[in-house]
Amino acid sequence: MEELKQRIMKDGQVLSDSILKVDSFLNHQIDPLLMHKIGQEFAYRFKDEIITKILTVESSGIAVALMTGLELNVPVIFAKKKKATTMGKETYTGKVYSFTRKESVNITVAKKYLSSEDKILIIDDFLATGEAAQGMLQIVEQSGAEIVGVGIVIEKAFQKGGNLLKQKGIKLETLVQINNLSQGQVEM
Amino acid sequence: MEELKQRIMKDGQVLSDSILKVDSFLNHQIDPLLMHKIGQEFAYRFKDEIITKILTVESSGIAVALMTGLELNVPVIFAKKKKATTMGKETYTGKVYSFTRKESVNITVAKKYLSSEDKILIIDDFLATGEAAQGMLQIVEQSGAEIVGVGIVIEKAFQKGGNLLKQKGIKLETLVQINNLSQGQVEM
Repeated sequence: MEELKQRIMKDGQVLSDSILKVDSFLNHQIDPLLMHKIGQEFAYRFKDEIITKILTVESSGIAVALMTGLELNVPVIFAKKKKATTMGKETYTGKVYSFTRKESVNITVAKKYLSSEDKILIIDDFLATGEAAQGMLQIVEQSGAEIVGVGIVIEKAFQKGGNLLKQKGIKLETLVQINNLSQGQVEM
Repeated sequence: MEELKQRIMKDGQVLSDSILKVDSFLNHQIDPLLMHKIGQEFAYRFKDEIITKILTVESSGIAVALMTGLELNVPVIFAKKKKATTMGKETYTGKVYSFTRKESVNITVAKKYLSSEDKILIIDDFLATGEAAQGMLQIVEQSGAEIVGVGIVIEKAFQKGGNLLKQKGIKLETLVQINNLSQGQVEM
């Protein structure tokens, strides 16, 4: 997605060999028009699939998933990292390890919002080691729903997440692949 | 907003005298089309104001704020409850006490995304005691930006948040006011 590449070149900050900071338009401050175009792009890339719901994880996946849901006209579910007090006991749970925070969190979805009838598109802002995606896959598997595919805004292609998904036979669409972040440069 | 009232009557669950659960369309599963209409409604209600940025707080404010930002064509910032490791030290901080969780959290915004030139619309899904709104007001005050108004999807009008904002002279627009939740009924 050319517009997104240009935005990363213009506003992305390389903090280390593995960290690209894009919080000026994607995951702290959000550019709604760019996000809308990203949603349209995902809708286009998955246009031949039957999708009944979109699943993401709070917080930074929400904006992208919402815009994709708007285009595809399907509900969006965001898994919670901190279980809401009102959520009840009937939940699916996935485990996500964060390398940046060096801690594991359980992500949860209320059972009533996913069923074996559902065909799920997983959407997230980043794919690196694949931890968040795998936590969401665990949740979808518990529900018996079908995974239609995974849509990622920015993939760090030098990390293992993309291959892990492809090895499972999952259709993966990434809008921008980062091949290298060394020496403070973004190589796409 | 009539459509939202009807949706609350249809899908809202009264869990106690003070808790209305709307996680089937607003804050766990999201209905993107309804969210889009909510964004349009806020844009209409603040159409005579000059707004440069929208501020909300993760996670459940993001969807509403994003759709409002799309309509108004301005950036959306979501304050973080857990400071990102990449966020740096230059942050504004507000304190938010959660009555449902019985704990205080600091919410933070990177300083570079708010300045004294900005005119801020605060957007959130719920207003009850006003804790989240006040945390966001603290952040805006630290930045020197101007508060244009506060837009709330569902106000629990029997709690003090609405009055607190009005006493400060802040323009408050709420799409649905809940007057009473006792006896398992929603009175709007």
